[in-house]
Amino acid sequence: MSEFMKAAVVHEFGQPLVIEEVPVPQPGPGEVLVKIKASGICHTDLHAAHGDWPVKPTPPFIPGHEGAGVIVALGEGVKHLEEGDSVGIAWLHDACGHCEFCLTGWETLCESQNMSGYTVNGSFAEYAIGNADYVARLPDGVDYAAIAPILCAGITTYKGLKETDTKPGEWVAISGIGGLGHIAVQYAKAMGLHVVALDVSPEKLDLAKQLGADVAVNAQDEDAINQVIAATQGGAHGVLVTAVSVPAFNQALNYVRRKGTISLNGLPPGEFQTPIFDVVLKRITLRGSIVGTRNDMAEALRFAAEGKVKAHIHKTRLEDINQVFSDLEKGGVDGRMVMVME
Amino acid sequence: MSEFMKAAVVHEFGQPLVIEEVPVPQPGPGEVLVKIKASGICHTDLHAAHGDWPVKPTPPFIPGHEGAGVIVALGEGVKHLEEGDSVGIAWLHDACGHCEFCLTGWETLCESQNMSGYTVNGSFAEYAIGNADYVARLPDGVDYAAIAPILCAGITTYKGLKETDTKPGEWVAISGIGGLGHIAVQYAKAMGLHVVALDVSPEKLDLAKQLGADVAVNAQDEDAINQVIAATQGGAHGVLVTAVSVPAFNQALNYVRRKGTISLNGLPPGEFQTPIFDVVLKRITLRGSIVGTRNDMAEALRFAAEGKVKAHIHKTRLEDINQVFSDLEKGGVDGRMVMVME
Amino acid sequence: MSEFMKAAVVHEFGQPLVIEEVPVPQPGPGEVLVKIKASGICHTDLHAAHGDWPVKPTPPFIPGHEGAGVIVALGEGVKHLEEGDSVGIAWLHDACGHCEFCLTGWETLCESQNMSGYTVNGSFAEYAIGNADYVARLPDGVDYAAIAPILCAGITTYKGLKETDTKPGEWVAISGIGGLGHIAVQYAKAMGLHVVALDVSPEKLDLAKQLGADVAVNAQDEDAINQVIAATQGGAHGVLVTAVSVPAFNQALNYVRRKGTISLNGLPPGEFQTPIFDVVLKRITLRGSIVGTRNDMAEALRFAAEGKVKAHIHKTRLEDINQVFSDLEKGGVDGRMVMVME
Amino acid sequence: MSEFMKAAVVHEFGQPLVIEEVPVPQPGPGEVLVKIKASGICHTDLHAAHGDWPVKPTPPFIPGHEGAGVIVALGEGVKHLEEGDSVGIAWLHDACGHCEFCLTGWETLCESQNMSGYTVNGSFAEYAIGNADYVARLPDGVDYAAIAPILCAGITTYKGLKETDTKPGEWVAISGIGGLGHIAVQYAKAMGLHVVALDVSPEKLDLAKQLGADVAVNAQDEDAINQVIAATQGGAHGVLVTAVSVPAFNQALNYVRRKGTISLNGLPPGEFQTPIFDVVLKRITLRGSIVGTRNDMAEALRFAAEGKVKAHIHKTRLEDINQVFSDLEKGGVDGRMVMVME
Repeated sequence: MSEFMKAAVVHEFGQPLVIEEVPVPQPGPGEVLVKIKASGICHTDLHAAHGDWPVKPTPPFIPGHEGAGVIVALGEGVKHLEEGDSVGIAWLHDACGHCEFCLTGWETLCESQNMSGYTVNGSFAEYAIGNADYVARLPDGVDYAAIAPILCAGITTYKGLKETDTKPGEWVAISGIGGLGHIAVQYAKAMGLHVVALDVSPEKLDLAKQLGADVAVNAQDEDAINQVIAATQGGAHGVLVTAVSVPAFNQALNYVRRKGTISLNGLPPGEFQTPIFDVVLKRITLRGSIVGTRNDMAEALRFAAEGKVKAHIHKTRLEDINQVFSDLEKGGVDGRMVMVME
Repeated sequence: MSEFMKAAVVHEFGQPLVIEEVPVPQPGPGEVLVKIKASGICHTDLHAAHGDWPVKPTPPFIPGHEGAGVIVALGEGVKHLEEGDSVGIAWLHDACGHCEFCLTGWETLCESQNMSGYTVNGSFAEYAIGNADYVARLPDGVDYAAIAPILCAGITTYKGLKETDTKPGEWVAISGIGGLGHIAVQYAKAMGLHVVALDVSPEKLDLAKQLGADVAVNAQDEDAINQVIAATQGGAHGVLVTAVSVPAFNQALNYVRRKGTISLNGLPPGEFQTPIFDVVLKRITLRGSIVGTRNDMAEALRFAAEGKVKAHIHKTRLEDINQVFSDLEKGGVDGRMVMVME
Repeated sequence: MSEFMKAAVVHEFGQPLVIEEVPVPQPGPGEVLVKIKASGICHTDLHAAHGDWPVKPTPPFIPGHEGAGVIVALGEGVKHLEEGDSVGIAWLHDACGHCEFCLTGWETLCESQNMSGYTVNGSFAEYAIGNADYVARLPDGVDYAAIAPILCAGITTYKGLKETDTKPGEWVAISGIGGLGHIAVQYAKAMGLHVVALDVSPEKLDLAKQLGADVAVNAQDEDAINQVIAATQGGAHGVLVTAVSVPAFNQALNYVRRKGTISLNGLPPGEFQTPIFDVVLKRITLRGSIVGTRNDMAEALRFAAEGKVKAHIHKTRLEDINQVFSDLEKGGVDGRMVMVME
Repeated sequence: MSEFMKAAVVHEFGQPLVIEEVPVPQPGPGEVLVKIKASGICHTDLHAAHGDWPVKPTPPFIPGHEGAGVIVALGEGVKHLEEGDSVGIAWLHDACGHCEFCLTGWETLCESQNMSGYTVNGSFAEYAIGNADYVARLPDGVDYAAIAPILCAGITTYKGLKETDTKPGEWVAISGIGGLGHIAVQYAKAMGLHVVALDVSPEKLDLAKQLGADVAVNAQDEDAINQVIAATQGGAHGVLVTAVSVPAFNQALNYVRRKGTISLNGLPPGEFQTPIFDVVLKRITLRGSIVGTRNDMAEALRFAAEGKVKAHIHKTRLEDINQVFSDLEKGGVDGRMVMVME
């Protein structure tokens, strides 16, 4: 193995990433070294590189948290994994293992967690370090580029759907059929749910129908709310707002069924206005949902491994990361960009 | 039985109620006639009399939905109740009995429900009609004035606490120790919860401590949020906001524990600003809670019957309703006003 | 309408039913008269006719509780149904409406319930009485013979599956692919579950595969338990035992996953031996499941209306009931017998 | 620190333990060395020493899994604990950390777990090894002898009660008021439950009443079942059978409420007869419950730290273990024996 590897490095917030040679990291106790085969590119990576959020990463750092690859070296004490195993490096790099959240299967809420490509180096590189107890197990022979987006976009929407507390046969509305939403539609159908897809783009609504949505409603239609209520015979039991915007959220409050749950994916800055009267009178539940746990990951990956969920991907290269970021900012990306390493 | 009874009648929104003689109503099929012994006076009665809410009652009407009394006549087909039974007439007067909400123990969400003192005449009168399947059963020999507030203030806070999804040994914060909050503290303790009480009044905080609150925090203290987090070792698992105000709600978002639930009681007009980033990152759940079902009522009444929950009441008379409303508007009422009929 | 109708009447336990003319019943307050178009024939009808169970019906009576038909007359006070509506008369004829079970959406546990074809006359007749709040709503234009078995066999297996507490993506084992099991397989697939079917008959295992079962295991194979554990990668998360027999139950205890739930359908006399050590060490849950509530019924019917679940039926006539009972006793019936009225 | 310590060692199943000097163990990576201050003595230790169960420990070994003490040395990589911290060594010594059960807060079901005093040496010694991520945190200044029984008897009954799925205000029956049951009564009261205690000994029933049981019923009374049903107004919502015996279990099946749950603690050999008809018709749930998770432990310890739960203990010495075992076998021990180290 070479001692150096190619990586995309953030040296300064808001500046282009630098493609450079850096030392291949060495796995410490309980860690594994992963040769990255493919890495999805997420809006969160863009926020990281821009330092957009209150708690910021510390440059220089390597973004990337949808890294799929193969273990090439084991740190001390790692017993249940072997060189050659296919694994994924996801947003949750590791957590403390003994706080109340870690003990109850909610390690995503651990206050001492590390996040890949944020507090520790991520997968926009030829190699990356994973924690043996936190990397996701991938099926042997998996298509790395195809599976990469499941590691963040997939698990995030799958968990978001679970958090709507809907059950098979009920109706879920999926608001926003973009990078997250087009995957959410597929998970929802695999989970036995009826799906109403909402978006402002006719193309995306067509896509939603192709992916199995029972009904597609243009969110800009004047009577969009009534269309959803009619199609669901009383309102959606659950709503997944994949791209939290004020109009999307307000609309959801109006087409959600009494006793329904609105689950929010995504981390936009800002606030939404919530009408107390309706929320109380209709006993509406609003809930934030952040990525998913290791168990959610295993479940989300199984649906993908069975072919029930496929992300729409466009392959790119590590060297083109700045162009991809630029496209993402413009909103011109359809589906998920995935960098493939040779 | 006389053919006429004394009642407090709303003839015009915003005008004083008229105390007058009206015919005693006759119970139809499935109904019972209740001689009212005591009736609590709720802010909602004030909203009804003022026509404050989007869907308004139709004058003339008799408000009142915390009516405790005795059955004096049975309508056709009523078999499981008898004359002489003690019962309560609560907000939920009746519901359709066959919609999805009625079939699943959520009749409070039935879209065809009647509300006592709102869509049908209520308990500010010597007699009132109850639906046999919806009146609350009261223990024989109950103190009617003492039990009356449980029929709305009691069930509302009890249900609100259940909706926080907390379990014995966990911490619940109760924000606002007024007419609802001082009852909520007692329910929370009876449910095995640890309680942090928040209010801006030192007297009310003292009261909360006397009623069993483990910790009392003045909501106006600069470090109120930190006090709650310290006392609960990480934040309250659940929060019941008894009087939804913007500052109280914002505070709750900051002292609720990760994965915690904020339950909202009360129906103020207006909207609150909800910070998406925090709600998502901490997986916070916000939930509206409206009164409670008949089963919640039975449970809430049992706690009261065992002496674990007592409302602070001030006795008044039907004839003084306009004075009481005036006091309520000024915020000068401590505990619950209950009109007692001779 | 004629004043008389044809019915199959039990006059004495264990004796053949008598096909005779009896008066058409009149709907009382809150009831409806239903012209029966088709009625499924269930093992429970046989138990009723034989007086097999501890609490027995009182002859003479008309069995039948899978009756699908059309409302032809309304009793006093019925408002939400109309003549011409298609409805189903199921096992739960009515319940008290105010006990703790009725109030919490578990009216199937009401101790004052009436059961169609058992405590009140059922659907083996040209007309039958239904309770307006308890009859199942059927889609307009429904195929009555096809939908009839959903009213008992369908709801029973659907509820039994819900009671396994499994969720989409998990494995459920369905033990016994007969009249109940072949429907259960279809519900399980529609609910997003993975299915292992177990039976001793190769034909029934083939049927299970055709209906969507992912894996079929012959329960008589020596290593049947290991086959289930291997296929499910550790044991089934839930088990539905559709025909509770001692060997089927013992097998289930051995292939259920740790923390799994075994749901029992069916009401055989007798007892099963339960090994405490395993149940405790593996935290196994055993749960009885009896038909389903009105809400379960609405859900079960929706899956059928969408074409996701179809019972295998054989059409027969009211006059042939004794022959059908005889065949049922011999175990020679494949799928569900449904009597069709002209 | 001395290189040797006193320990009670099983050299051969069924033979007296040998009190001897053995080397003080050294903590490996992720482990801590605990100076034992007190260790409760559990029936399970007796089963271990006798090799009673299917999977047996390998002599020589040191039993003991209710060890309370102080950390005196840290193994490599332990960061969140310090020398001087008070901790408890419980039955669950460690688990794999990455199986589906470990990932979902059910590490007690991990198939690769180690059990203290069974698969690894336990706390019947002056020092014992704990796993840093699995030892229980004890409050500073805790009374070690008093807290020791919470580490097994406490958590086991607390978890068993949680597994009954009862909620504050409901009735739980606790069958057997011995070493487990007398603690269970206290947890149940602290959890807001109403308690019916059942035992055959009037002294133990008196004790139950003193500890807060609302009702005590002698299980040998002919009408014991009816007494429970009357006291609970319809049957207990949940039952905890602390010492699973056939008569106790059969009784529970008869006094549990419809829809109730019977939770089983204890690991007796043998089987119980379960009547299918009743279990199905009443929708009864039977559930095995095995110790509790680390999170359950933290909760159970908090109730004890607040003084709400206290085990009745008798202090003894390491040297007297064989006498204690002999007494335990004879059933002559009231409350919990705890060996205290100087």
